[in-house]
Amino acid sequence: MILELNRTEKIPLYQQIKRSISRLIQDGLLPPGNKLPASRELALSIGVSRNTVVQAYQELEAEGVITSHVGKGAFISHYLPFDVSSFREGKQTSISYEGLFSSTWLRSNTGMPAVLEQLAQPQEQQKVLSFATDLPDHELLPLDEFRDCLLSAFRRFKEDLLISGSPQGFEPFLDYLPIILARRNILCNKQNLMVVSGLQQALSLVARLFLDPGDTILLENLTYPGALGVFRSLQVNCIGLPLDTQGLCIDVLKRVLRHRNAKLLYTIPTFHNPTGTTMATERRMRLVDLCREHNLIILEDDYAHDLSFEGRESVPLKAWDSCGGIIHVGSFSESMFPGIRLSWIVASEPIIERLSLLKQSSDLYTNRILQAALLEFCRRGYYERNVKRKRQVYKKRRDRMIETMKYQFPEEIRWQKPNGGLFQWVDIPPRLDALSLLLETRKKGVVFAPDRMFAVEGWKRDGFRLGFVCTDEEQIEKGIGIIGETIREMLDSASHT
Amino acid sequence: MILELNRTEKIPLYQQIKRSISRLIQDGLLPPGNKLPASRELALSIGVSRNTVVQAYQELEAEGVITSHVGKGAFISHYLPFDVSSFREGKQTSISYEGLFSSTWLRSNTGMPAVLEQLAQPQEQQKVLSFATDLPDHELLPLDEFRDCLLSAFRRFKEDLLISGSPQGFEPFLDYLPIILARRNILCNKQNLMVVSGLQQALSLVARLFLDPGDTILLENLTYPGALGVFRSLQVNCIGLPLDTQGLCIDVLKRVLRHRNAKLLYTIPTFHNPTGTTMATERRMRLVDLCREHNLIILEDDYAHDLSFEGRESVPLKAWDSCGGIIHVGSFSESMFPGIRLSWIVASEPIIERLSLLKQSSDLYTNRILQAALLEFCRRGYYERNVKRKRQVYKKRRDRMIETMKYQFPEEIRWQKPNGGLFQWVDIPPRLDALSLLLETRKKGVVFAPDRMFAVEGWKRDGFRLGFVCTDEEQIEKGIGIIGETIREMLDSASHT
Repeated sequence: MILELNRTEKIPLYQQIKRSISRLIQDGLLPPGNKLPASRELALSIGVSRNTVVQAYQELEAEGVITSHVGKGAFISHYLPFDVSSFREGKQTSISYEGLFSSTWLRSNTGMPAVLEQLAQPQEQQKVLSFATDLPDHELLPLDEFRDCLLSAFRRFKEDLLISGSPQGFEPFLDYLPIILARRNILCNKQNLMVVSGLQQALSLVARLFLDPGDTILLENLTYPGALGVFRSLQVNCIGLPLDTQGLCIDVLKRVLRHRNAKLLYTIPTFHNPTGTTMATERRMRLVDLCREHNLIILEDDYAHDLSFEGRESVPLKAWDSCGGIIHVGSFSESMFPGIRLSWIVASEPIIERLSLLKQSSDLYTNRILQAALLEFCRRGYYERNVKRKRQVYKKRRDRMIETMKYQFPEEIRWQKPNGGLFQWVDIPPRLDALSLLLETRKKGVVFAPDRMFAVEGWKRDGFRLGFVCTDEEQIEKGIGIIGETIREMLDSASHT
Repeated sequence: MILELNRTEKIPLYQQIKRSISRLIQDGLLPPGNKLPASRELALSIGVSRNTVVQAYQELEAEGVITSHVGKGAFISHYLPFDVSSFREGKQTSISYEGLFSSTWLRSNTGMPAVLEQLAQPQEQQKVLSFATDLPDHELLPLDEFRDCLLSAFRRFKEDLLISGSPQGFEPFLDYLPIILARRNILCNKQNLMVVSGLQQALSLVARLFLDPGDTILLENLTYPGALGVFRSLQVNCIGLPLDTQGLCIDVLKRVLRHRNAKLLYTIPTFHNPTGTTMATERRMRLVDLCREHNLIILEDDYAHDLSFEGRESVPLKAWDSCGGIIHVGSFSESMFPGIRLSWIVASEPIIERLSLLKQSSDLYTNRILQAALLEFCRRGYYERNVKRKRQVYKKRRDRMIETMKYQFPEEIRWQKPNGGLFQWVDIPPRLDALSLLLETRKKGVVFAPDRMFAVEGWKRDGFRLGFVCTDEEQIEKGIGIIGETIREMLDSASHT
């Protein structure tokens, strides 16, 4: 306990607090310049009323022991009215971080305009009508079902859930995954699998396993910002490849591979983020062949496999992998309840073995509790039932979005209907800047994700991404109306100048 | 679904399976050389009996469509009795991983003898009487209480738990942590805190934030192997410093700092792993001063703070930090229920900001579900109650271990009584090799953790670590008896030769 209070003593509590703080300072335990806890916090911590702490602080301040700054809090004074142990005197300089950070740490400046950083803040999300996120709305979350599964996981696995784990994943979950994956046309064994804490960790581990600074990596331009962030932090050269209505342009890739030595290709073949495009089957097969010919690792991000609206699921690249060059990362939680942070990696054994070591060094293993609950959730058929419902709701929302766009957007604005997933991409003419458009619609309470969030260096595709899963049909109609109106205003004023 | 079965068709199911597999092969979906799922897995996945699948596989094998190898499973034949789509033909070479892995990935060869790798396997743990782990035994796990807290966290926070999170941690948990930390003499605000997925992740993120290949890091020799693994994977120079009964030798550190330019010092000042030593207060203060003088970051690992057996808790280094140079990592779950993977980092704001970005790039954020449950667990006082009980039980076990050692170990064997924590270190004379001793006791069903698991290059302290928390008093008596007996045998035979 930091403060020694004696409730049987006759001295008032606020004076005991004063005395106690002064002692800590004299003992050198609270050095000058250090911040004191907020009065509310300290009151909670020692079980007194907040007023008692405030009174103590006020008197200490009057005596010159502490100083307080509005909005900043209270600090131990540098000019104390009593002696502190000589040990600490005259040494209150700060450490200099300059030159201490590693050259490979992720730069705090991600190159994003400040408004985009703000958009990502949860507070911001609540204030506006947001098409910027990929989060399912609250009503579609199977909260009670998941809680029941947690309970039954505890009944089934008991202490095993609390005590330890293996870097590869929770055994019963690893046993079950091949069955799920077989339904996705991926045949694999437990040895080809690893469970990780979300897709971002999957991408980060694979990137760290393969990439040295200066290596070259190929990816679709535009692409998922979370992946871009990982690759940039490793200081590799990112080469962005174009995609058209059929997905990644394989002919371009082929030409690039002739003169560039790339280690890895990152792709989102199904319901591509942000464009919504799904790669044609013939291109998938050609891509797999190129991977073998050029000894290129393909990192396949299958983040929304199950969210197909047209009844037919795409066959993942991994299903055609006969050379061990394809690393498949997937999930059945990201689109269901992203907060549980569970995804998997499918790859050849030599890769899984090394990834396990990297996982172990990163965070030992992923907690078993949520793996056990998710397993139960799937076994009971809740997953199938919920994803079916999501598909229905999301399809309706996509349709409503497209209908509204047809009606509200000027002719020059183009789009392709996505066959599933979470996102609608909208192409705009170059004279309309997506970021400027965003700044305008934001004033009217509507936000979306503009092109530059997804752009690899040196190339841009004018447009913006609309997430259609986080808003209901009414909101979609309202928001698209506002965006359409703003586009028309901006195009008008552009043609006037 | 990978296999199309029609239960109303008159064709027997095993023949439908055969037909379906052949079609997939002909369509190029199952390329030659690919492994088929185990019959049990496939049977489960499509809902038929295992015999049905076995029969299908047997006939396919007889027809030359698949080949099977005992213990390896069934594979699509390279010499098929029918044509497959020309697309895939003649291209069944494997990718070569050679040269593809990054130079910074953690080497699979950790330098540990195979027997030590085996010791870490959970199966191995169950077969033997193990003093090698730090896991609490099942009886001490507050399973029901934690489950209740999970439930009530769901009631309180609802959908918020499933949907998203911030890299810094779950807000209500971040609000609560300063109160816990104030009890540990650390005064801090929410801005100084980050919640991560276990202590290993804390160490890994901090190491990655500061260390470039070739940098120098100082640490106690011996030290925690998980930290060593992280530092080695980043290819830094590890300089091991000696410790005595008072902890890290500050005089040696001072001399080293005169001529070595080190960025970071990693230390476990309280209940040091593996030696059990606790750093003296005067040394702590000198260490903090050295950090400021030499602009050295100190990474303080306070993994077992609460497990003090003598009634007085040590003051963490962080409590004396007035220059922002100390990064404190701690937990109240590692020693309680390590499986929930939750720890915290306390550091100055500039460091927390950068760590948050690194966390975001690594795995976005730690799930909120378990943070909310742990918060509830603490608020209800369950944590205090449980840790109190653990202290009592562990203290008894430590005492029993020491009593038994006094009685069973020869005079030449020395030890210092730890004041708390999980580990008892035993010093042995150099003519007794700890690994050889382990190989002998293992034959008798008893294992422990020998010196070289914890050794930084170029230095060794002969001895071994005994965990006293994972075994009950009876087991301790039995196991120590066996170790003592084996030591005597080995010393006898050594003096004979």
